[in-house]
Amino acid sequence: PAALPKKACALTEYVGTAIGNTIGLVIANVDAELHKQMGIDPKYRSIGIVGARTGAGPHIFAADEAVKATNSEVLVIELPRDTEGGGGHGSLIIFGAEDVSDARRAVEVTLQYLDQTFGDVYGTAAGHLEFQYTARASFALNKAFGAPIGQSFAITVGAPAAIGVVLADTAAKAATVDPIAYSSPAKGTSFSNEVIFAFSGDSGAVRQAVIAARDVGKQLLGALSGEEPKSSTTPYI
Amino acid sequence: PAALPKKACALTEYVGTAIGNTIGLVIANVDAELHKQMGIDPKYRSIGIVGARTGAGPHIFAADEAVKATNSEVLVIELPRDTEGGGGHGSLIIFGAEDVSDARRAVEVTLQYLDQTFGDVYGTAAGHLEFQYTARASFALNKAFGAPIGQSFAITVGAPAAIGVVLADTAAKAATVDPIAYSSPAKGTSFSNEVIFAFSGDSGAVRQAVIAARDVGKQLLGALSGEEPKSSTTPYI
Amino acid sequence: PAALPKKACALTEYVGTAIGNTIGLVIANVDAELHKQMGIDPKYRSIGIVGARTGAGPHIFAADEAVKATNSEVLVIELPRDTEGGGGHGSLIIFGAEDVSDARRAVEVTLQYLDQTFGDVYGTAAGHLEFQYTARASFALNKAFGAPIGQSFAITVGAPAAIGVVLADTAAKAATVDPIAYSSPAKGTSFSNEVIFAFSGDSGAVRQAVIAARDVGKQLLGALSGEEPKSSTTPYI
Repeated sequence: PAALPKKACALTEYVGTAIGNTIGLVIANVDAELHKQMGIDPKYRSIGIVGARTGAGPHIFAADEAVKATNSEVLVIELPRDTEGGGGHGSLIIFGAEDVSDARRAVEVTLQYLDQTFGDVYGTAAGHLEFQYTARASFALNKAFGAPIGQSFAITVGAPAAIGVVLADTAAKAATVDPIAYSSPAKGTSFSNEVIFAFSGDSGAVRQAVIAARDVGKQLLGALSGEEPKSSTTPYI
Repeated sequence: PAALPKKACALTEYVGTAIGNTIGLVIANVDAELHKQMGIDPKYRSIGIVGARTGAGPHIFAADEAVKATNSEVLVIELPRDTEGGGGHGSLIIFGAEDVSDARRAVEVTLQYLDQTFGDVYGTAAGHLEFQYTARASFALNKAFGAPIGQSFAITVGAPAAIGVVLADTAAKAATVDPIAYSSPAKGTSFSNEVIFAFSGDSGAVRQAVIAARDVGKQLLGALSGEEPKSSTTPYI
Repeated sequence: PAALPKKACALTEYVGTAIGNTIGLVIANVDAELHKQMGIDPKYRSIGIVGARTGAGPHIFAADEAVKATNSEVLVIELPRDTEGGGGHGSLIIFGAEDVSDARRAVEVTLQYLDQTFGDVYGTAAGHLEFQYTARASFALNKAFGAPIGQSFAITVGAPAAIGVVLADTAAKAATVDPIAYSSPAKGTSFSNEVIFAFSGDSGAVRQAVIAARDVGKQLLGALSGEEPKSSTTPYI
């Protein structure tokens, strides 16, 4: 995990920023009327908020590390259709905690992990690829994708969506994995131009499936865009 | 309200253009078969049409002034996911009238008010803020947001959506207002990357709540984008 | 139809690329578990896939020629909200076939027709227009728009959506046609900033209606954008 950037704002609500036009915020004591409007369990007085223009997978996998590491719960995961002109999602993730220091800590941990979880995001002007892998899924991945808690879990993402179909097929054939969800522009996404394939299984098999899909994806997106897809930070899988 | 720009098109359907890639159009006598397909009450032979690539709040608040000032009704308010690569909405607003001059007038008034209603829209490359306030809501605001007719009404908007959450909390705490709606990427928006908070109440309190949220929003978006958010025209609140 | 571009990728799944950041792919034998997740009839072992960042109408009309010319079926037509910052859709189209050579052929024919079906797509920085016409609709147009099989069929598209409303009215008045669907940002699109009008009828009348709408559309989009809308390739209607 990377260090947090220097504090750019004096408001107590401000926690920090990160790659993908991501901002991390905290509210110590949410207004009671707003709390009702948001539909959040009143026991979570404090909320931590992570939002981004670009990126949903990286933020959800980072939030999963945050819920493992802190005394907080993931209350909301919503995926706007964004990426600033790209084909994918942005994100809004809200953590709940009884104590403000726990909510703040969840946001900090999420921001710190983004440098890693953007490692297998590959963008070109024509589209993007994303690969995520964890040895042990927790509550954020369960809420977002239905990942079985405690199991190895991964996703492959391709945009335009046609590439994502081939990534899914490549992953499914490369090793014995359990498919959990296949999402496409009209089903399971916010009309993004992606196919997202989510699967769990034996840790070695899940990793092997992701790596095979990544190899194919880079060739296909490279052929479409006429340039080699590059990692947004440093590959981690 | 600003003056209308010079007429750039000789078609009788053309009314004018405005900020936000906005176009105003009028149809004197809608084709009968199309009328059915559109699902509009047949008594409105004439329709006025305002559409924009960028902006929904500015157009709805301007349309609200138009319905107050003219003999027309707001039949359709639809919010595409647009803003030309930004995180928000565009808009499609259709006025109905029995007489074409009323439909045209509604479009003209809407276009004229946009210079004002873009006054508290603040954009940066990383996101945007929007604040709108009226002392007396009418039928367009009622249809779009459920605003109580005749009451003071306002909205706060932040993109990325995380910022909008803090704006909502700031507004709710700054004065005693009645929350009407809390919209987020997956609920009440067209998957835009915004949280929109709508509220009514005593005129002074509503204004005070908006101003407090605007102050916080400019600091947060400034921290995310590394530049000071600037008004699209001239602030009016 | 244009010639396919030179093969840029050695993977057997790769077929080719085309205008609109379009990629064509084929899978000879879809993984059995993935096949279930995709909800496709198991008898189609082989699938052909066409996906694009920009363009849905051009791809669906091209796919309609492909199903006429090959032994394949259109299984999936999904419309992401894309166009890389523009106001419209991208596309994901999946063909099914019992034999891989048929699936590949369907993709090849689709890619070859795109140069033609982009002929009446007109883009400016402010918005876009699209017109499509066929003398005889087949299964892709039936699936996507409800076009009556074997009949003459056309669509008019305007973005921002306000322009599309006037195009629909112009087409409906220019000749005696049968309206089939009127789609707008909140109904029948993926929150795109378009109004799409689909109609069938006598071949001459349908063509006449499209040509009248095209003439009006170019004037309106020209007035909004301050530049003359230009064909993406060469007009074909």
